[in-house]
Amino acid sequence: MAEVEEEATAGEETQQEGADIYNEEGVVRASFLAHIGATIADRDTITLKRDVADLHQSELGDLLEALMPDQRRALVDLMGADFDFGALTEIDEAIRMEIVDSLPNEQIAQAVQELDSDDAVYILEDLDEEDQEEILAQLPFTERIRLRRSLDYPEETAGRRMQTEFVAVPPFWTIGQTIDYMREDQNLPDNFYQIFVIDPTFKLLGAVDLDRILRTKRAVKIEEVMHETRHAIPATMDQEEAAREFEQYDLLSAAVVDENDRLVGVLTIDDVVDVIQQEAEEDLLRMGGVGDEELSDTILATSRSRTPWLMVNLATAILASLVIGLFDATIEQMVALAVLMPIVASMGGNAATQTMTVTVRALATRDIDIYNAGRIIRRETVVGILNGVIFAVVIGVVAGGWFESFGLGGVIATAMIINMLAAALAGILIPLLLDRLGADPAIASSVFVTTVTDVVGFFAFLGLASLWFGLG
Amino acid sequence: MAEVEEEATAGEETQQEGADIYNEEGVVRASFLAHIGATIADRDTITLKRDVADLHQSELGDLLEALMPDQRRALVDLMGADFDFGALTEIDEAIRMEIVDSLPNEQIAQAVQELDSDDAVYILEDLDEEDQEEILAQLPFTERIRLRRSLDYPEETAGRRMQTEFVAVPPFWTIGQTIDYMREDQNLPDNFYQIFVIDPTFKLLGAVDLDRILRTKRAVKIEEVMHETRHAIPATMDQEEAAREFEQYDLLSAAVVDENDRLVGVLTIDDVVDVIQQEAEEDLLRMGGVGDEELSDTILATSRSRTPWLMVNLATAILASLVIGLFDATIEQMVALAVLMPIVASMGGNAATQTMTVTVRALATRDIDIYNAGRIIRRETVVGILNGVIFAVVIGVVAGGWFESFGLGGVIATAMIINMLAAALAGILIPLLLDRLGADPAIASSVFVTTVTDVVGFFAFLGLASLWFGLG
Repeated sequence: MAEVEEEATAGEETQQEGADIYNEEGVVRASFLAHIGATIADRDTITLKRDVADLHQSELGDLLEALMPDQRRALVDLMGADFDFGALTEIDEAIRMEIVDSLPNEQIAQAVQELDSDDAVYILEDLDEEDQEEILAQLPFTERIRLRRSLDYPEETAGRRMQTEFVAVPPFWTIGQTIDYMREDQNLPDNFYQIFVIDPTFKLLGAVDLDRILRTKRAVKIEEVMHETRHAIPATMDQEEAAREFEQYDLLSAAVVDENDRLVGVLTIDDVVDVIQQEAEEDLLRMGGVGDEELSDTILATSRSRTPWLMVNLATAILASLVIGLFDATIEQMVALAVLMPIVASMGGNAATQTMTVTVRALATRDIDIYNAGRIIRRETVVGILNGVIFAVVIGVVAGGWFESFGLGGVIATAMIINMLAAALAGILIPLLLDRLGADPAIASSVFVTTVTDVVGFFAFLGLASLWFGLG
Repeated sequence: MAEVEEEATAGEETQQEGADIYNEEGVVRASFLAHIGATIADRDTITLKRDVADLHQSELGDLLEALMPDQRRALVDLMGADFDFGALTEIDEAIRMEIVDSLPNEQIAQAVQELDSDDAVYILEDLDEEDQEEILAQLPFTERIRLRRSLDYPEETAGRRMQTEFVAVPPFWTIGQTIDYMREDQNLPDNFYQIFVIDPTFKLLGAVDLDRILRTKRAVKIEEVMHETRHAIPATMDQEEAAREFEQYDLLSAAVVDENDRLVGVLTIDDVVDVIQQEAEEDLLRMGGVGDEELSDTILATSRSRTPWLMVNLATAILASLVIGLFDATIEQMVALAVLMPIVASMGGNAATQTMTVTVRALATRDIDIYNAGRIIRRETVVGILNGVIFAVVIGVVAGGWFESFGLGGVIATAMIINMLAAALAGILIPLLLDRLGADPAIASSVFVTTVTDVVGFFAFLGLASLWFGLG
């Protein structure tokens, strides 16, 4: 009960504060930040604790991100045991590492015990092995075993993200017994949404949602109301796949089981939401030619992570130049071709990017499959020809008028249709092919696709011009 | 209790079936699809009901998407009252409309009563007003009032997405009274995760999580364990903003209130997950120059939705051509310039896209703000110069060697550094500026950014060449 009241009161007190730390754009208020900065400078622990201790961990995280590096360390220092380490799960990796590295391992060990196991693992997994071991060694036995089990699963698996605290009861208990147990037991997890049903060897038999327990009479046995858990998640399952299970079946929490079907933890929707966000972000960044980059990365790290993609682009740009080089005599005789040629390539590149974006996204959401691939390829082809004709007319008239040459208008119009068709085909077939070969279509498609439209665009335009005007 | 047991049994029976309808790639099995197709052709209602009635609504949705249009209609027809209309909330809009349009309004009215109100609204909101009214008129009074209230809120608001079924109790009830009420009442929602506390005028006072109820003694009053709901969502709040509240505070469900703080519904995390997915998808599609497009759109709709962006791109491509046109005399004298010039523009375009992608994403997740914008602009500038120098050396050597001209190598290297710096500045400043002006940086940035790198790239390269070689 003490815990319950504490939470209710905390909620009450922070209602004002909490609503207040952001301005209308959702950014930490400058006045609040200045106030906290001054409080830290004054080392005024009492005021600091009053204004910071009741923040939600995500609010504290935003505050930490907005502060200067030495203010962050000072804040953690001044707050002492009142610092909510959960906030560290809400901030950029680079800033988290910076704070954690500045703390003695004893303090981290102390803090980790206060956290849910999934948050503890989130903080521990980035540390080097030596520090990890030193911290784990200072934890009580059960806590240590639990965290080590999570850390033993590979990165980005359900086992790493799961919470090892859960409520489990045997199938022969009644609803009444179960409720009484929950009223007495002081070691329940902070929050839970279902209880699991296990046999004496911890083998998972089923689950009961809490609302089902509340609406069932005391005498009814658990096994009568439990449902078999169709969606138990193997601990070694990739977190992305686990997220897909949650989405597909609208799950709130799911049991995580080991290779013998024994219950080892629970995965909850709030962790999954983070995974979904992260995956969507990855797709976007990869399509933009950026890797796993964070805003807090250093200049050298950023430059290094972007160079490979630019290098590939340089190679394909040189390939396109070689195509132009084939027609240098043609261009020499008719310099208007040099002026107009980027238009054909650029339009093809954009049309291909449109098709490719739709295809990559459909592959990610599994909206494209063997049943509709044929239909979608046909659709993209027709759209490509249609848009090719539309823009052929426009550019034909513009170019013909500009250089007062009917022939030049015809040449660029024809090249435009050819390149828009090539764009459509490349935009859909290349991602499909990459996916089939097991590559991530988000990362590799852009290079191949724009190479196709550059090469086809320059070749069609300059080649047709050379034929039509009998040049070169 | 009947309901409870039915659910448990359904879970058991479908365990095999459910796991079975997908192949290892997560696509509906060809054999299952063929079997269902044959069953529909035979009009074998018994087999169809046996194999389809127990599918989860998302599985049924995937099955519908994989079938041919006339098979879909036949399936809905043959299943009759056993068809789970919830499946319609899981499929593409175009396919949903196609199925709903083929059904008589009476059947839809019947089906809508079986659904949770949020699913019912999801199906009704796409219908034209006349059909909507006809369907609503056939519903019982309370149901009609509820749905109409949701439909009266604007599209994409919390009021549209909320569920109007919830459990609410007065603050002076005890935990025991509350549990007894839930055991007796037959009209509880199918699932709920917290109960709300209201005064006699339905004004929201607080909420209690179900696990809190289960671990509290019967004699304790609700008001002693409830927490004030800091995160009540106004019904008119945009769904994207509501989703952000869920993410920030790790909410599972939240009360939705009207302008007088009266409880009108509850928003649950599964709806929010869909919103998060949708928003991430929108960002990706917009950056790729595609609007709200679905795979099931027709050819004409697709072509029309992609044309505006291509038109804008044509205008900027012509602008770049005009820049080249300024130097036609220069190119005429030295055709190598025409061969090499796309390289400078293309590298700038790619570098700018990288920076822009990171910036657009950071703006969407609110990771960039007035506190770190200055630092990030500096970082991007230095990265731009650094990568500019790296690729200047590479292309300088390549071009100088290719055309056996030390001067040409120097010119292209200098132009590369200039354009990479322009790319970095355009990539970060343009999205920031658009965001400040209230435009969506995801949709408009690409055009402006690549215009800058094309124009600067061609101008720097051709201009420097003209100066260095004294041409033109």
